[in-house]
Amino acid sequence: MKSIITPSYAVHFNETAYDALNTHLAAANYSKVFILVDENTHEYCLAPFMAQIQGEYVFEIIEIESGEINKNIHTCTQVWEVLSELDADRKSVLINLGGGVVTDLGGFVASSYKRGIDFINVPTTLLAMVDASVGGKTGVDLGSLKNQIGFISQPKMVLVVPDFLGTLGERQLTSGFAEMLKHGLIKDRNYWNQLKSVRSFDELDAYILDSIIIKNEVVQQDPTEQSLRKILNFGHTLGHAIESHFLESKEHELLLHGEAIAAGMVLEAWLSYRLTGLLAEELEDIKATFVERYGKVSFPAQDIDAILTLLKFDKKNSHGNINFVLLQNIGEAQIDVQVPDDLLREAFAYYSE
Amino acid sequence: MKSIITPSYAVHFNETAYDALNTHLAAANYSKVFILVDENTHEYCLAPFMAQIQGEYVFEIIEIESGEINKNIHTCTQVWEVLSELDADRKSVLINLGGGVVTDLGGFVASSYKRGIDFINVPTTLLAMVDASVGGKTGVDLGSLKNQIGFISQPKMVLVVPDFLGTLGERQLTSGFAEMLKHGLIKDRNYWNQLKSVRSFDELDAYILDSIIIKNEVVQQDPTEQSLRKILNFGHTLGHAIESHFLESKEHELLLHGEAIAAGMVLEAWLSYRLTGLLAEELEDIKATFVERYGKVSFPAQDIDAILTLLKFDKKNSHGNINFVLLQNIGEAQIDVQVPDDLLREAFAYYSE
Repeated sequence: MKSIITPSYAVHFNETAYDALNTHLAAANYSKVFILVDENTHEYCLAPFMAQIQGEYVFEIIEIESGEINKNIHTCTQVWEVLSELDADRKSVLINLGGGVVTDLGGFVASSYKRGIDFINVPTTLLAMVDASVGGKTGVDLGSLKNQIGFISQPKMVLVVPDFLGTLGERQLTSGFAEMLKHGLIKDRNYWNQLKSVRSFDELDAYILDSIIIKNEVVQQDPTEQSLRKILNFGHTLGHAIESHFLESKEHELLLHGEAIAAGMVLEAWLSYRLTGLLAEELEDIKATFVERYGKVSFPAQDIDAILTLLKFDKKNSHGNINFVLLQNIGEAQIDVQVPDDLLREAFAYYSE
Repeated sequence: MKSIITPSYAVHFNETAYDALNTHLAAANYSKVFILVDENTHEYCLAPFMAQIQGEYVFEIIEIESGEINKNIHTCTQVWEVLSELDADRKSVLINLGGGVVTDLGGFVASSYKRGIDFINVPTTLLAMVDASVGGKTGVDLGSLKNQIGFISQPKMVLVVPDFLGTLGERQLTSGFAEMLKHGLIKDRNYWNQLKSVRSFDELDAYILDSIIIKNEVVQQDPTEQSLRKILNFGHTLGHAIESHFLESKEHELLLHGEAIAAGMVLEAWLSYRLTGLLAEELEDIKATFVERYGKVSFPAQDIDAILTLLKFDKKNSHGNINFVLLQNIGEAQIDVQVPDDLLREAFAYYSE
């Protein structure tokens, strides 16, 4: 496969990935190479990754606990302290080997350690490959508020190696697939139709590449999310609130990110049908596709109240208004749509019926 | 006086400062105006500052505890949580009204809140006016390691109002004056000679402007500290280690930043005499000038050991070597000079004799 080269960093795929990494490490003359993992990528991904590195470098492995619940400033402080104890200096590099928690948190830690050291992202989950791998968003949660702390900082390079997907279960792959479906909905109707027919996750390579190309095109045109980039938030305004609510509530089973935004996309598709011209048959297509793959989350009335309360804290809100990204049709999104409060409850009613 | 306009931000002096702020606030349409203070600037600076603001805005005051000991991630987390509770959104602005702790920490908090909101620095100490006011360094300490966490992020504008110096004691003014003397040593012999003859801090305005111009010229040529900007670290390699040691040691009285780097500059002037051609009479001039204004810090042998241990953690070190900025003569600095270990102890011997 191929590489996507942008002005600030490069995304390398599959067999070209390790070549690019080895060439970079040989040229960069890093004082030390730190690798950030969680207990899962430590066990399943680190050995195959290390086996591909040629040359002699000083490596240090830093392990954090997996899970969104650990994506916080406390974990950052622990990693900063370990870096400091292990003499990381400005010429050190941090390789983030893991899912979105590791790449988001590791990117933030690296960019703010001694005013910024190089970092390289090696996403090991489907979600991280198609979403966190490009765009440079780094950060951690503040309490139950997702990605409240962080900033835009580009990795030196991103290595996308689909082999790592073999370490994941079906549920995690399905979660990541939701972001790919989103890329179809906001930007490419053909891609959406192709993905709908995917029946096995064994042959995802080409589709992953398409997803990254779509995301990369959007991000390059609007790196700091002034306008166009906001379309990537489709499904995320309600999806994040749902995810946060399930994260902080002790009664609920944990909802994976993709599962939360799958529900968010159905809800926001309904808003699109009411407000921005999405056709009834497109709405039904979207609902049927997501319900078939993700089932339905149950939302009792008190959960809906809590979710709508969390909404106002979403980081995309400005001046107290809640701005949504909605669809004009499948493949075309519209940003900055304000939605009346009462419509939000109707959306949940449609989702549940 | 006048303003310094750079590509990314502007520094406004004295009477032009409030005009610039009022014009900016009227145009920017912020959702809320947050003002970060410590208990001292809350008491002495906030009222006169607010009195100069024209127009109706929603203000929220956030107070942190003063002192380097509170310049840490824990304080950041508290400020992030207050911002979140008070519904700060991406269109909010944070005005940092205080000394270097408030402007460094506030800049870091703002730049990483929801991936970055605007911030404005209003330095109220001499040190912050001539040092922290330009250059965009933000950050906090990690344990006793100064500025270990942070990054370069530019404020929207910097307002330098020397009136605030009336709220400071002689000791704090003298501390800030050390950074001005440094600007003379590294870049401008005439300025050094002028400052030596300053006998009263009542008429510092013109000198403050000169200092900011010198620092700004350096920073504009090398914003990310690849080479030239390093000259601003003269006196700081040993100075920071001394400051950190006194901060974490319970037996010592607290040393102000300028007091620590005054000692650091004498020590590094001696290294310059031995390694980079500083003349003996220049060395004596530097030592006499600093000892007259700052006295001598007492360094028992065990303190020197501890300080040299801290040195290797200084964030400017790379690959385990300790790079110094030294003087070729008064007004001209040389970067990346490696100093043999044994010379460091000799420098302390010279300082104490």
